[in-house]
Amino acid sequence: MGALDRKIQTNRTGSVKLKLTQGGRPVAGCAVRIGQKNHKFQFGSNWQDDIIRFARKELNGPAGEQPDVITKLYLDLFNQVTLPFYWANFEPEQGKPGTEMMKKLASWYSSHDIALKGHPLCWHTLAPNWLLNMTNDEILRTQIDRIKRDVSDFAGIVDTWDVVNEAVIMPIFDKYDNGLTRLCKEKGRIELLKIMFETARETNPRARFLINDFDTSPAYDILVEGCLEAGIEIDVIGIQSHMHQGYWGVEKTERIIERFERFGLPIHFTENTIISGDLMPPEIKDLNDFQVTDWPSTPEGEERQAEEVVTHIKTLLSHPLVESITWWDIKDGAWLNAPSGLIRRDNTPKPSYHALKDLFKGEWWLKPSEFVSDSKGEIEVKGFLGEYELEFEGRLQRFQIPSTEESEIQIDLL
Amino acid sequence: MGALDRKIQTNRTGSVKLKLTQGGRPVAGCAVRIGQKNHKFQFGSNWQDDIIRFARKELNGPAGEQPDVITKLYLDLFNQVTLPFYWANFEPEQGKPGTEMMKKLASWYSSHDIALKGHPLCWHTLAPNWLLNMTNDEILRTQIDRIKRDVSDFAGIVDTWDVVNEAVIMPIFDKYDNGLTRLCKEKGRIELLKIMFETARETNPRARFLINDFDTSPAYDILVEGCLEAGIEIDVIGIQSHMHQGYWGVEKTERIIERFERFGLPIHFTENTIISGDLMPPEIKDLNDFQVTDWPSTPEGEERQAEEVVTHIKTLLSHPLVESITWWDIKDGAWLNAPSGLIRRDNTPKPSYHALKDLFKGEWWLKPSEFVSDSKGEIEVKGFLGEYELEFEGRLQRFQIPSTEESEIQIDLL
Repeated sequence: MGALDRKIQTNRTGSVKLKLTQGGRPVAGCAVRIGQKNHKFQFGSNWQDDIIRFARKELNGPAGEQPDVITKLYLDLFNQVTLPFYWANFEPEQGKPGTEMMKKLASWYSSHDIALKGHPLCWHTLAPNWLLNMTNDEILRTQIDRIKRDVSDFAGIVDTWDVVNEAVIMPIFDKYDNGLTRLCKEKGRIELLKIMFETARETNPRARFLINDFDTSPAYDILVEGCLEAGIEIDVIGIQSHMHQGYWGVEKTERIIERFERFGLPIHFTENTIISGDLMPPEIKDLNDFQVTDWPSTPEGEERQAEEVVTHIKTLLSHPLVESITWWDIKDGAWLNAPSGLIRRDNTPKPSYHALKDLFKGEWWLKPSEFVSDSKGEIEVKGFLGEYELEFEGRLQRFQIPSTEESEIQIDLL
Repeated sequence: MGALDRKIQTNRTGSVKLKLTQGGRPVAGCAVRIGQKNHKFQFGSNWQDDIIRFARKELNGPAGEQPDVITKLYLDLFNQVTLPFYWANFEPEQGKPGTEMMKKLASWYSSHDIALKGHPLCWHTLAPNWLLNMTNDEILRTQIDRIKRDVSDFAGIVDTWDVVNEAVIMPIFDKYDNGLTRLCKEKGRIELLKIMFETARETNPRARFLINDFDTSPAYDILVEGCLEAGIEIDVIGIQSHMHQGYWGVEKTERIIERFERFGLPIHFTENTIISGDLMPPEIKDLNDFQVTDWPSTPEGEERQAEEVVTHIKTLLSHPLVESITWWDIKDGAWLNAPSGLIRRDNTPKPSYHALKDLFKGEWWLKPSEFVSDSKGEIEVKGFLGEYELEFEGRLQRFQIPSTEESEIQIDLL
């Protein structure tokens, strides 16, 4: 077992002592079946276009009644999804947000036990063009109202939000004029973040709110420090890791996490990409500048991707503060037309998909297995933190391995 | 006149109406001589080794009695100096600071009307090795005591200080172990800066305190914003611009200033270098890694340097928030053995020196000239902001052009 695997064992597994009883009395020598139902750790991807079409009822016939093969692959691997609240797409015409369609989408994922994250509430990219006719005061008011509306409309459905996306470059973004860059230039990053987070929190005090950025230079951890010193309540630090130009490797990844660990906040790796084709040239600064019509996945690339993906995911999981990983995108040909998927364009899974499934639902997963209680009626279950199910005479009971600390649960079999 | 020159005229010049009187009555048709004595704008360099040797009385004979030729060149061009308070050099043995020698050095510069800046109070580089035996609490206590001692010892002599130097990399500096990196890693940048600035301000409430950094990426303006949001009173933002790898050009320089102008604080360009020899290769990340025994100044390099220096200085002066520029170093062969001087190793001035002197003491300077008061006894003097002297019948009186707003002064000639 390597160093990463050992850390994963330390930080991601636990044990629970089940005390089986009937009418309150211990039941010795009792055979039950126990299997894992979910990981505590969140592993997801961004929304899947076919699910959107499904929610929009754009799929007819059998496809309209049930998710297709990619969706099955999704549900077999992931327990979390990032939903697209890009403002310009969500509300292309001011006052007509796509709330109903998004609720259907959210509800579909929820019904499949997929945890939801909304992305993003405030971002200069995909800020609607209709903001450009406003004064900065009006833009601010509209942005605040947008947060209030969406966080409120989705309270109880989406309770995890990327509040501000890419604030490091927001005020100096110079590709095109947009309302948020104007506003951030005037207010400053921290003042804007403060207003956005306070608005979101007032609207839904029970939700969790992230800051998120692709900038992994000291600029970002300094910004987080500045926000925290200014009293902004950030629940989670989101770090993007789009590696179209090559896998970072363990050392760089650990060095980046290390720069954020002093805050003691949970970390989400919100946007992870490792491609299975030729790398994007290193001279490209803004990934969006790389526009290609054809970017194939190759057999060698897929083998490399599978190895790198496994090492990357293990690196992230080995750190106790990382609590969520989101793959970007599940299938080739989405953002940048890149071979970034775990699934090919023809809907077949790549080696990376199989490798991850072998971990999450294999090596790191308790398949339904028989356990027999000892003379005191006890069963010790060791495994990855998460949710488990006990079956006895056809009846099902759920329990958790909630933490790396040992715990005890009494389960009454009657 | 170019765009930079026009901005310099707008932001750096003013006019004053002198009302000449004798016994309170206006004196019409009176001839006086008026000349400039100093610029309001500070233009300086870092300490000069020969002056240190002079202060240490290491120079014998005539050299020990008067500053040498470089010193004359210094005094002819500059009105400000940065003094070296590098902790490891200033206090090589704990408890034995070089206070007396530094006071002699300071006093020599002061006696020549040179404004003083102390550099730096808190920096990971040149932190004394004897800190390494301490706990972080002890390092903090010792650093605080050091600030109290030196800011107090030099109050009234050195009233401008670089308080914290290079905080952006301080906690992630990994070249060698040092007390300040340890401390900053534990405290975080903003918390450490807060303690350092508060200590300095409590010790000398009348002094001006700078933050200073070579990092001109968004990390630095985000750090400044974080500090200000956390309530740290920073008086001046210091920006280093060591251009051993090539002159930035006007656009990049303006873009950097622009990122700091929203704070409305004065800006000092604290460490400016443009070399007159071959450029340092672009792949060098830390300038200190470039060690050469020979780095000659070349005739072509000197012509290029002169042009670039003039454009650079004009770019800085054209912005109203920039109030000080420090050249690093005045003479070739100091830091990094670079041809960074305005003066060659053989003590002869380069074209850059002449070009700057032509500006500061030529085009931008009022040489003693005759003025005659009008029928109301008034003289209008236009010129660069700064100090002027009026001579009438052998008697001298000082006055200021204090700002770009028009002002009036009554000067009684008796």
